[in-house]
Amino acid sequence: MNHTVLTGDRPTGPLHLGHYFGTLANRVRLQELHRMYVLVADYQVITDRDVPGRIQHNITELLLDYLAIGLDPAKATIFQHSAVPELNQLLLPFLSLVSVAELKRNPTVKDEIAHSSQSAVSGLMFTYPVHQAADILFCKGTLVPVGKDQLPHVEVTRLVARRFNERYAPVFPLPEAMMGSAPLLKGLDGGKMSKSRGNAIALKATADETAAVIRAARTDADRHITYDPERRPEVANLLTLAGLCLGRAPEEIAEEIGDGGAARLKRLLTEAVNEFLHPMRKLRSSLDAADAREVLTAGNARARERAVLTLEEVRQAMGF
Amino acid sequence: MNHTVLTGDRPTGPLHLGHYFGTLANRVRLQELHRMYVLVADYQVITDRDVPGRIQHNITELLLDYLAIGLDPAKATIFQHSAVPELNQLLLPFLSLVSVAELKRNPTVKDEIAHSSQSAVSGLMFTYPVHQAADILFCKGTLVPVGKDQLPHVEVTRLVARRFNERYAPVFPLPEAMMGSAPLLKGLDGGKMSKSRGNAIALKATADETAAVIRAARTDADRHITYDPERRPEVANLLTLAGLCLGRAPEEIAEEIGDGGAARLKRLLTEAVNEFLHPMRKLRSSLDAADAREVLTAGNARARERAVLTLEEVRQAMGF
Repeated sequence: MNHTVLTGDRPTGPLHLGHYFGTLANRVRLQELHRMYVLVADYQVITDRDVPGRIQHNITELLLDYLAIGLDPAKATIFQHSAVPELNQLLLPFLSLVSVAELKRNPTVKDEIAHSSQSAVSGLMFTYPVHQAADILFCKGTLVPVGKDQLPHVEVTRLVARRFNERYAPVFPLPEAMMGSAPLLKGLDGGKMSKSRGNAIALKATADETAAVIRAARTDADRHITYDPERRPEVANLLTLAGLCLGRAPEEIAEEIGDGGAARLKRLLTEAVNEFLHPMRKLRSSLDAADAREVLTAGNARARERAVLTLEEVRQAMGF
Repeated sequence: MNHTVLTGDRPTGPLHLGHYFGTLANRVRLQELHRMYVLVADYQVITDRDVPGRIQHNITELLLDYLAIGLDPAKATIFQHSAVPELNQLLLPFLSLVSVAELKRNPTVKDEIAHSSQSAVSGLMFTYPVHQAADILFCKGTLVPVGKDQLPHVEVTRLVARRFNERYAPVFPLPEAMMGSAPLLKGLDGGKMSKSRGNAIALKATADETAAVIRAARTDADRHITYDPERRPEVANLLTLAGLCLGRAPEEIAEEIGDGGAARLKRLLTEAVNEFLHPMRKLRSSLDAADAREVLTAGNARARERAVLTLEEVRQAMGF
């Protein structure tokens, strides 16, 4: 079956290897099979912080990351949330289909509220699952790759689509969530991988920066390397990452290193990561902000064409 | 000072004399003095009911009412909420400036929730004051004619404008609410005047329909007519309405009728209303749906030009 896939990122900083193995690699695969829309979710940046920061810069960097990993703008429509008013307008009729009680119950919103840097929960954060419904439904998305924490958002989208179809006319498909099968990578300090914690390897980092992050990675006191995610999570995480980069099983790499210890593991990992990222970094270095802008301008125009059609259909169905 | 005035109505049914003396007459006056935008608030129809009903029909009727009372589309930009995506997009950044707690506290929302026909409060109802901020600020409105119950909405708009200006750049004026000075008209049965209660005189009603509504109006047992709003509210209300139509003081009319009783008061009122509405009804009968459509199409285009400029300014200020 031919799907329409909606996926995307908030432009809050450079993408890292956790993103790559978690979702980006999957996108590069999906763009060959399906119609794909990739959303640069600029408005979502201000759901949980007061100001968008260096957003223009972040958007450019995100676009360069996308192009570097092999997202093909001829196949995937890469666009910016704020550049498609007809998509955003869908928020209004969609908000009428969801109750305040339903919004309050959304576990992801609850969780994001708990981790927000804002002193009070903003209306944008509160209504965020409904924006996401607009993001998914404006292109009649049928497949949404998600992490586990985003499953409830897709549920809201299905609810909105179902209610709209019942109340007015069968305009929208009910999208399916697609759970990734990639192993969860932790940060190199054992915590959650995050650009802000400095425990992640940015796709655009230099070979030296990569080596430095890996050198500082946490391991444990046991010199003999084994793959034991339960009892030796930090070492197992490095082995997993090496395995992903080399296309090998982490157990096998562990056995190979054996008494070579953490030092040898880190050397092996540094080489594996730098080799893996080399073609992406090379491609990236041949691109500049103008390329990013061009891709976004074309993507925005294409997304907008699509949104105009959907909004027109929605207004017709509602009798406006 | 030259103002930009934002005003409008939900297209839920024909306008009546209460609307006319409460707000419409004021608009006709204001359009001569200021830049004016008149919003046909179609999305607001679904804040407190599930389906928009015969919305296309209601919009046409509303437009014909507007033209009949003398709103001049060459002076006032009459437009439809759902036809201006760039206005609606403002909802997203604006929602980030208001907390959920602030939305919950809004007394008008509380009140409208209490009178809503929906089983659960919708997200659209909950965020409604922020839509209204977008409606007012998209055209950089500086003056908003309101009833007392809408004052808190203008407060939210001022809050949004102030916070946006502080956080990003001084893009928006702080609009002022303009409270009407017209006496409050009650329905002809003594209750709140409302088209749905059948106690109102629609501007487009025929002379016979008008006579019938007035004939059924509630009065009291005292045959001698006096103007006493405290103790004789129904009779006072009829006298007030007659006074407004005739441009005379209600006390004077009461004295003139004296022992003529309710029957004579009603005859006088019927004549006064029909004479007052005659020129509007005549103008209205010369117009049809095509005229309404034409006015709206032109107004939508003009509103959209304005909204595109404001949204561009907002995106620039936010660094998008």
